[in-house]
Amino acid sequence: MSFSPSGAVADVPVGTSLLDAATQAGVEVAAPCGGQGRCGRCRVLVTDGVVERRANVHLPQPLLDEGHSLACQTFVTGPVTVEVPARRREKVRPHGHAAAEPEALPVSCDWRRDPAVRVIELEMEPPSLVDQTSDLDRLRRALARHDIDDVRVEMTLLHGLGQALRDADWKVAVALEMRDWVYGTYLPPRLLDIRPASEACRSFGLAIDVGTTSVVAYLVDFTTARVVDTESAYNRQIECGEDVISRILYSQRGAGLLRLQRLVLETINDLIAELTTRSGIGGGCILEVAVAGNTTMTHLLLGLDPKYLREEPYVPTFSVAPKLVAAELGLKVNPQARVHCLPSVGSYVGGDITAGVISSGLYATDDLTLFIDIGTNGEMVLGTKDWLIACACSAGPAFEGGGVGDGMRATYGAIEDVWINAETYEPSFRTIDDAPPVGICGSGLIDLLSELFVTGIVDKSGRIDRRLAAVTPRVRVRDGLGEYVVVWADEAGEHRDIALTDGDISGLVSAKAAIYAGFSVLCGSVGVELAEVKRVLIGGAFGEYLDIEKAIRIGLLPDLPAERYSFLGNTSALGAYTALLCVNMRHAILDVAGKMTYLELSADNSFMEEYTSALFLPHTHLDDFPTVKALLEATSVGSGRREAADHTDRRDERS
Amino acid sequence: MSFSPSGAVADVPVGTSLLDAATQAGVEVAAPCGGQGRCGRCRVLVTDGVVERRANVHLPQPLLDEGHSLACQTFVTGPVTVEVPARRREKVRPHGHAAAEPEALPVSCDWRRDPAVRVIELEMEPPSLVDQTSDLDRLRRALARHDIDDVRVEMTLLHGLGQALRDADWKVAVALEMRDWVYGTYLPPRLLDIRPASEACRSFGLAIDVGTTSVVAYLVDFTTARVVDTESAYNRQIECGEDVISRILYSQRGAGLLRLQRLVLETINDLIAELTTRSGIGGGCILEVAVAGNTTMTHLLLGLDPKYLREEPYVPTFSVAPKLVAAELGLKVNPQARVHCLPSVGSYVGGDITAGVISSGLYATDDLTLFIDIGTNGEMVLGTKDWLIACACSAGPAFEGGGVGDGMRATYGAIEDVWINAETYEPSFRTIDDAPPVGICGSGLIDLLSELFVTGIVDKSGRIDRRLAAVTPRVRVRDGLGEYVVVWADEAGEHRDIALTDGDISGLVSAKAAIYAGFSVLCGSVGVELAEVKRVLIGGAFGEYLDIEKAIRIGLLPDLPAERYSFLGNTSALGAYTALLCVNMRHAILDVAGKMTYLELSADNSFMEEYTSALFLPHTHLDDFPTVKALLEATSVGSGRREAADHTDRRDERS
Repeated sequence: MSFSPSGAVADVPVGTSLLDAATQAGVEVAAPCGGQGRCGRCRVLVTDGVVERRANVHLPQPLLDEGHSLACQTFVTGPVTVEVPARRREKVRPHGHAAAEPEALPVSCDWRRDPAVRVIELEMEPPSLVDQTSDLDRLRRALARHDIDDVRVEMTLLHGLGQALRDADWKVAVALEMRDWVYGTYLPPRLLDIRPASEACRSFGLAIDVGTTSVVAYLVDFTTARVVDTESAYNRQIECGEDVISRILYSQRGAGLLRLQRLVLETINDLIAELTTRSGIGGGCILEVAVAGNTTMTHLLLGLDPKYLREEPYVPTFSVAPKLVAAELGLKVNPQARVHCLPSVGSYVGGDITAGVISSGLYATDDLTLFIDIGTNGEMVLGTKDWLIACACSAGPAFEGGGVGDGMRATYGAIEDVWINAETYEPSFRTIDDAPPVGICGSGLIDLLSELFVTGIVDKSGRIDRRLAAVTPRVRVRDGLGEYVVVWADEAGEHRDIALTDGDISGLVSAKAAIYAGFSVLCGSVGVELAEVKRVLIGGAFGEYLDIEKAIRIGLLPDLPAERYSFLGNTSALGAYTALLCVNMRHAILDVAGKMTYLELSADNSFMEEYTSALFLPHTHLDDFPTVKALLEATSVGSGRREAADHTDRRDERS
Repeated sequence: MSFSPSGAVADVPVGTSLLDAATQAGVEVAAPCGGQGRCGRCRVLVTDGVVERRANVHLPQPLLDEGHSLACQTFVTGPVTVEVPARRREKVRPHGHAAAEPEALPVSCDWRRDPAVRVIELEMEPPSLVDQTSDLDRLRRALARHDIDDVRVEMTLLHGLGQALRDADWKVAVALEMRDWVYGTYLPPRLLDIRPASEACRSFGLAIDVGTTSVVAYLVDFTTARVVDTESAYNRQIECGEDVISRILYSQRGAGLLRLQRLVLETINDLIAELTTRSGIGGGCILEVAVAGNTTMTHLLLGLDPKYLREEPYVPTFSVAPKLVAAELGLKVNPQARVHCLPSVGSYVGGDITAGVISSGLYATDDLTLFIDIGTNGEMVLGTKDWLIACACSAGPAFEGGGVGDGMRATYGAIEDVWINAETYEPSFRTIDDAPPVGICGSGLIDLLSELFVTGIVDKSGRIDRRLAAVTPRVRVRDGLGEYVVVWADEAGEHRDIALTDGDISGLVSAKAAIYAGFSVLCGSVGVELAEVKRVLIGGAFGEYLDIEKAIRIGLLPDLPAERYSFLGNTSALGAYTALLCVNMRHAILDVAGKMTYLELSADNSFMEEYTSALFLPHTHLDDFPTVKALLEATSVGSGRREAADHTDRRDERS
């Protein structure tokens, strides 16, 4: 048999799996689950010949019909030719869609007819003794011929106006902000830029997602509405604290607030420099900016004291930011460029979530929909186009790799996929960039916990079964804590064992319990069952890297059919992109923020009860997780397994 | 060497000028001409020691004998003690009504029902876990109870908002700008100030007339609409040039523009300091500012390059200034206070004239009215409520005392009233503050020329009758020029003769001819006769100090019945006061500026003809001056007199 495009060949007996054949031929095929048919990653295309395939949930019929096969579940019966897809070239991905170009605007908008900014070339009659109209009025007059009846010009631009017009010999290109969107009333267009017509530039905008961990910028061409380039980086504020609470604490120290503001501005300005250098455009051609960020991030970006976000009753200074321009903030785009901050709802439901409600389409749907953004905080919105209710659960940093001994952020060398062989208890894993493993990132932790659970290494209360130490060296006890070793020191990037302990698991279970309790309380508050949710939209940090099935198995996500789940990528940046380009959506965003009810969990009595119920794997009420229950019943994975099914489901009792 | 009274010392080598020594010692000595010995302003008194002095026309012998020296023309030869006179605290009348409190608003406006600013006390419910509304939205909510549906808050105020509300225990006084008037649309109120209710202050405004020579400020109480105090000072830009042209030239040198802006801001800020100290109010309680000034002054105040005002075709950068706030400009009032610049019409018809058209009532009258403001430039507006036409005549500095040997500004010791005995040719005069005479100010020069003319000392062509030297020592010839001595050195404040020469008269006649030609061209351009003008309204620098009858006799003003003339005082400051208080008038002011036609005299062929005709006393066409003609016929005042009547009146020929 042969492999394309490499041309490698293998001489193997009938009955050999394509995966084994590939290994023998030296062809790399990803198989993080170790060839158990569970992960679905080893997909190849059989282009010629006949094979025998086992049924597998990971390959739907249409793909099967085309010849797609899972290499580990497909076996040679004769001469065969197999095409191995090229491995995706992945940049480091602080966020799901960071580097991927968004396909299209997530909403419909008439950006051509109702543009946010316009660049217009004007040719004016020079002044004379019989026409002494002032420079500014001459400009207005020329604009009136383009149906622009008035224009606002701020002092900064007025300073150079006389010289600019004369230097350009009265032929100029002006850039205008066409729409002001914060305060109900539309104002006349505002002059952003004036330069000789011969030096006119296309108009660009910048959509920025300012996350606690990472900052993502999209460079948008206003003349095509396309994202022409994207760039992302860690938020430099990380050096002052990993999460929002530690940033708020840092802001209270001396010049802490100023430093935090400076650091995030530096982060953004570096992204701008990167994007403009690569695209060969001047920063002055970036004429409008939209920023989505959580409430703490926007407070810090604007240099506003976030103190009261953290102190009960958790009140932000603003929800709709005042108008400001790039020069006020120090952003290195056109100094006059308007900076729009997407409005927030509360101290822990910020502009990133408003952005998500817009870009996910939740704001316009009839179906009962749950939008979630899981990071340090699990923010979630439940609703339809008619109503929206939101809450935020403090999950702690576990899902971003914090508070876990060998946890780390989703970067080079982080284990992101884990599979454990139920027979041997041996793991297989994949790391970001296939680098030597250094630690485990959020999605890897969820995978690992799920695998430990379904293989019976961890019981429903989250404890490692120490008896297995007698069966596998992977399970051991250290300093009184049970632990499972994922990577031995000699295979690890930093030459030490990478393991997950009872203590780490306890933190992860707490985190998932907080998130799941949020879902429960949100539904309970409006009298619906989680099972009634028609769609679950996942935005934010996890993005496509989260394995839904595994997340359900540990009880992080509700046990709903896979087709109800969608991964939307960086919904925050997409929302900023929408606000940047679609002036008609700017009012919609304000409406969304205005009508969203914020449920403060610390003031909600049912939260603690729901949280406590969720402190088991997958949950105290196993009947709420029918697929997990079925899996546990179907597989024979150790003695602790059946106890879960025995547990009284209190929810059933109540209903 | 040492300086008294400061006691400062300097150790300088022989040959150092006293001015340089003073600079080194940190002693302030005025030297507007930069130490060239031309202005005579750096006078000091050498009380001890020996110096070497250069001859200088500015110091007459008696003063030299007393030890007075020009610091720049005097050099150290050994130990010396120098007394530096205290800088004169000038409390004079740069403008007619500068220090007088205006009686009432010159227009009707409902400032109570439609106030420019409001101060409102608010008491808010503190936030709680069940009411986590943001600070800003809480403020909005409280304002909504006062029928204020929205409020604009800029970043600066947002920065302190959270702390301010909590420090005030949620009981605050907020100040709001209620009306935005520049761009057609009314915007929501804008937050100007927030402070604890217990520290609420009354709301004040500031109306400023920024003149080339002097700056006048009115402190206005918004709660009573009264001017509670006024203050004026010379525009410190004077040290960079006396008139607008020299200021424009100065602005082109290095940091000249910045310096000019700084100087006028210092002038205004000193007035503000004086007013607030005297009234015992905080600068933060001054919540709105209106500024009227000529086009050069407003360009300089805003830091805009005035270069093109001076270069043909004389085009200003703007006529309606952009919106700006005090902090942007550096005015020491409430940083958020809006600064309104009254709109201008052209490079030489500025906001001071628009202000005058409003405050004089011209904008609303049915009668054909001429509004004039005579200073370095004679600006004039002809019209009714339906139409307005304006022009500016460059009169030169003669009427402000410039370009005339013994001319001076209207300040301490200036001769302002002159009468000449037709028999003895002996003068009598009055000086400002009855001080010893130092020179002659504008109104004094008009008086003097008129008296010289009607007493026959000067003939209709403006020449001193040298034959009278035989009759009176007052008439004499020096350096080939005839002159009339008003004050003998021994009566004069500076111990030198004060006289008017043929050359001085020539300058004055030129100036009055330019003004009168303006009137003629303005009337001619709309096909009316000067005699048809129903009212002549005089505003600006001359104010009540101008003697109408004498001004008519020299042909400066048209020969109309006295009852048609009115003096209106400082119409520029009054217009600013109107704009400050009456939001309904703000649109009216824009309308006025918009509909006023600017007649560029340098592009008008008839101007030169009219000017030439006006280069006689009172005018070539004596029939246009019937009262003067009658006077000349009735009195027997010398041989040259009758010739005037003989002169063909071309205007009569044409009609």
